[in-house]
Amino acid sequence: MKDDVARARALIAAADNVIVIAHERPDGDAIGSLLALNLSLQRMGKGSVPVLADGLPRTFAFLPGAQQVTTRIPDTADLLVVVDCSDLERTGFKAGAFPRKADINIDHHPTNTSFAQANLVYPRAASSTQVLYDLAPRLGLPIDLDVATNLLAGLITDTIGFRTSSVTPAALRTAADLLEQGAPLADIYERSLNVRSFVAARYWGRGLSRLRMDGGVLWTSLTLADRRAVGYSGSDDADLVNLMTTVEGARVVVIFVEQPGGKVKVSWRAREGLDVSRLASRFGGGGHVPAAGATLEGALEEVQARVLAATQALLETTKAGER
Amino acid sequence: MKDDVARARALIAAADNVIVIAHERPDGDAIGSLLALNLSLQRMGKGSVPVLADGLPRTFAFLPGAQQVTTRIPDTADLLVVVDCSDLERTGFKAGAFPRKADINIDHHPTNTSFAQANLVYPRAASSTQVLYDLAPRLGLPIDLDVATNLLAGLITDTIGFRTSSVTPAALRTAADLLEQGAPLADIYERSLNVRSFVAARYWGRGLSRLRMDGGVLWTSLTLADRRAVGYSGSDDADLVNLMTTVEGARVVVIFVEQPGGKVKVSWRAREGLDVSRLASRFGGGGHVPAAGATLEGALEEVQARVLAATQALLETTKAGER
Repeated sequence: MKDDVARARALIAAADNVIVIAHERPDGDAIGSLLALNLSLQRMGKGSVPVLADGLPRTFAFLPGAQQVTTRIPDTADLLVVVDCSDLERTGFKAGAFPRKADINIDHHPTNTSFAQANLVYPRAASSTQVLYDLAPRLGLPIDLDVATNLLAGLITDTIGFRTSSVTPAALRTAADLLEQGAPLADIYERSLNVRSFVAARYWGRGLSRLRMDGGVLWTSLTLADRRAVGYSGSDDADLVNLMTTVEGARVVVIFVEQPGGKVKVSWRAREGLDVSRLASRFGGGGHVPAAGATLEGALEEVQARVLAATQALLETTKAGER
Repeated sequence: MKDDVARARALIAAADNVIVIAHERPDGDAIGSLLALNLSLQRMGKGSVPVLADGLPRTFAFLPGAQQVTTRIPDTADLLVVVDCSDLERTGFKAGAFPRKADINIDHHPTNTSFAQANLVYPRAASSTQVLYDLAPRLGLPIDLDVATNLLAGLITDTIGFRTSSVTPAALRTAADLLEQGAPLADIYERSLNVRSFVAARYWGRGLSRLRMDGGVLWTSLTLADRRAVGYSGSDDADLVNLMTTVEGARVVVIFVEQPGGKVKVSWRAREGLDVSRLASRFGGGGHVPAAGATLEGALEEVQARVLAATQALLETTKAGER
């Protein structure tokens, strides 16, 4: 890794025109790393273009340098840096779309495929911006207030406001350093983590008002009629599910979202190490141990009955196994 | 303040039986400071009793040493330490209820009246546990894992998970140190900040599903019928109001809660420095610039109309003033 840092430093020093790119459907860490690195390179007097396949989500338009983001890859460049991507395809572009091979790969995902010439991958870092912050002095990258703000945005969003188990003493000390440099922590939190749309709030309200709890299973449903009634056109139910996991006594959370064409999207969240990915696979879906999903054919009530029975059975088995 | 620290250290060193007390209706910082100091004194071999006028809220029963909390003040003691209280009455007891005068006062509220023999009041600290952590070496107080867990609980809750403007680099570095000592940051966050009851979630869901937005005013109401339908017996609407302030485009949030006897409780929250306390006073209530409330006589719809008109007028005036 030491060699990779030296190699990256030399590549940066020699470059005049850089392309920086992060992953498609970008989150705060993808955007924070992208903008921080882009601005830092520009502070060094280099040309640099920040690319996102889907463009910049409106929520993050407040970040310094956000208006520079483009969806078009420049035709020429003498350095290609990929941030927060476990492989090159995560950028949303095929390898042939770039004017050159990936030179530097900066990431914290343990699944990173080390696809570049210099691979700076630190899976214990809480965010890719944390990797950038730690390596900045050795890479010769300057950090000013704008760069610091973007670095902190990545750290805050990837740890959902310093609340995940990935938060280390080093992550908190990095946040302290960036705050000391003037990065507006409370403002970043409010703007990036504490925002929902009016229509989504009404839609989720319908789900919350019909919550049911049975044993340790907390569940609700959202119908196509709910969607029409409030005018919700989105497809994101993560916010509602996350709210539901905060309800006392909920060991497993399930949400049923009616889809056009006689289908129902089911999402599970589990606490206490219960494995809902097994349930999801049984219904043709997938996911992780604590968070999984599947889309089933059938009417809402019929799917609910089937899935709830299986979910209760999982809880029963787990109880039996604990005895 | 230096003299006060030396005096406090001497008082602690000489004491054998200590009473530690925090404020009534205790929050996470009151409880965290109380339990941290109590356990630390016991680690020094001293007798110590942690007192809370209202006893320990169930939410915080997971904190180390929580089961020691009592509501009864011991008849004798050779040291009385008051934590997180701006004056002695905040304990919920009259001065005469204690076997001695307050010896040590540890706090971070700027309104603290310096009511003890040694006053350790640091208004720039993000929490009273931050004050305790900073002074621990000079006071001779040992910090083990249990003490660290309580200190971190105070810091996390008083900053609502490191998101308030009171978060300083020092606060984040303290959190880093405590995490390094093993304090379970993610677990404390989940248990103390990320919990709501099933019934409350359903009740608030009803409010959310009926959200209205008019200009920059986001509002909703909760009726006595809502309360009956979900079986909600609580009186706390802070969680719903806080959720509402996260909705995009909301400059002022208003919630109307129908009360028995033909009354309506109105709560306002404002963003961008709008002063809703003026509105609240006009309707016989009060509060702070960004958060205020009042209870009005009248039917729900009639009160809504009156209050919304006045709230819109405030927004109009503010717009005019900005021109």
